[in-house]
Amino acid sequence: MAERDYRRLPGERYDLSAIDPSDTGDYEGKKKGEKELEKRREVLLELQRKLHVDGRNSLLVVLQAMDCAGKDGTIRHVLGAFEPQGTQVASFKVPSEEERAHDFLWRIHKAVPRLGMVGIFNRSHYEEVLVVRVKELKPEAVWRTHFEHINNFERLLAESGVTIVKIFLHISPEEQAERLRDRQQRPEKQWKFSPGDLEDRVRWKSYMAAYEEALTLCNTDHAPWYVVPADKKWHRNLVVSEILIETLKNMDLQYPDPVADIDSYVIPDIE
Amino acid sequence: MAERDYRRLPGERYDLSAIDPSDTGDYEGKKKGEKELEKRREVLLELQRKLHVDGRNSLLVVLQAMDCAGKDGTIRHVLGAFEPQGTQVASFKVPSEEERAHDFLWRIHKAVPRLGMVGIFNRSHYEEVLVVRVKELKPEAVWRTHFEHINNFERLLAESGVTIVKIFLHISPEEQAERLRDRQQRPEKQWKFSPGDLEDRVRWKSYMAAYEEALTLCNTDHAPWYVVPADKKWHRNLVVSEILIETLKNMDLQYPDPVADIDSYVIPDIE
Repeated sequence: MAERDYRRLPGERYDLSAIDPSDTGDYEGKKKGEKELEKRREVLLELQRKLHVDGRNSLLVVLQAMDCAGKDGTIRHVLGAFEPQGTQVASFKVPSEEERAHDFLWRIHKAVPRLGMVGIFNRSHYEEVLVVRVKELKPEAVWRTHFEHINNFERLLAESGVTIVKIFLHISPEEQAERLRDRQQRPEKQWKFSPGDLEDRVRWKSYMAAYEEALTLCNTDHAPWYVVPADKKWHRNLVVSEILIETLKNMDLQYPDPVADIDSYVIPDIE
Repeated sequence: MAERDYRRLPGERYDLSAIDPSDTGDYEGKKKGEKELEKRREVLLELQRKLHVDGRNSLLVVLQAMDCAGKDGTIRHVLGAFEPQGTQVASFKVPSEEERAHDFLWRIHKAVPRLGMVGIFNRSHYEEVLVVRVKELKPEAVWRTHFEHINNFERLLAESGVTIVKIFLHISPEEQAERLRDRQQRPEKQWKFSPGDLEDRVRWKSYMAAYEEALTLCNTDHAPWYVVPADKKWHRNLVVSEILIETLKNMDLQYPDPVADIDSYVIPDIE
């Protein structure tokens, strides 16, 4: 169960070394898992359509992970269940000149989903306490202030109808090596291979320390973090789908009331 | 075949009364059709992933139709095959105060997909020669200038890497009446029923005349219009999928070259 295993109480410390990336929980293997995912995709679609027409809330899914951990695959296989019309994906890369000329939340704020929508952040404002910290792109005195700004910002969103779910896809360095090797060797995947990924890989421990602190300091009731074991893709998809279904079900979504006196309208003939 | 039946040569007149909205072409019925669509969704996904990583072109799908003709369903069932990360939907409703304070293409231009992306317009700049014309929201001297502006704008996009496909979902007034009645009577659909749809319905002939002129005057080699018979949803989905597959296949999409000396990189160990 996602709620039980993959989330900490606000204030409690996240210890990533205590969470096994190859865990497959109570699930009974890949084959059954993939069938189960198909069913859940239908549940997700139904819930999202309700979110869309209800229009009183939006859902913001923040995805963070090391390279190769499966952000793209999660978006494809789980969040791909949603209707394109109700879904928007924002991918945050290296900030542009204009973005760097604003505070770090400026470009994030612009990408927040409007009510009724699902917004997916592929990377997010958390990069400002992850890559920025690990690669020392800003001094600690600066990035350390970001935790509080992030919590304040997320509370603003939550109080404005945005339900926030933050997911860290937790992969092991061994599994990452496998996937990097796969990209390096399989001709149809070689275009994905980026030497920059190797530079991040050697900083693995620094990244884990940065993640642990970010997850711990920014884990609130209104914007919880989930750590999802991600070595097994099928299991990762199941846990993420479970988290999203639980979250959407807790939102008490309703179809709007029909127009008054709906029966009184006559549909005109057209010759 | 979509190319043969549902498209006119530039300059040729579109006569909507000559295209049967309940046509099911060469297809062999709903059941086989739905199976075929499943296969095509996989082809579409593969092509879109290639479009995304190729990054030299984008695809813009413009959807126009009368109410209930199935724009939402087409987006869900056909364009839903694409990855959320490579797809963006823009729905153009009544312009806001800010949008009205600009030229009619301003808000459209902002929503054009960047290279690598699929953009879907649920309604579009064509409303400016359709609803605006039929409801006399602007004088003819104004909206009549729009045809040329639209052609110029679409040529700008086409010459900048945007492949444009424009689709008119062609429904009969009888089928629309069925679908309106369905919304009116089925409790789970009643929230969709809007009296405004009836107001548009009584103007059916004016709308068809406006569509015929827009399709005829804005049907260019770089931004062709397709008329898709849409009374049968399964057939509509097949024709739209066919048009999109043909269009994407004609784009000569390529995976990027891998980084130079890819074999020379050593994946570092992490203890």
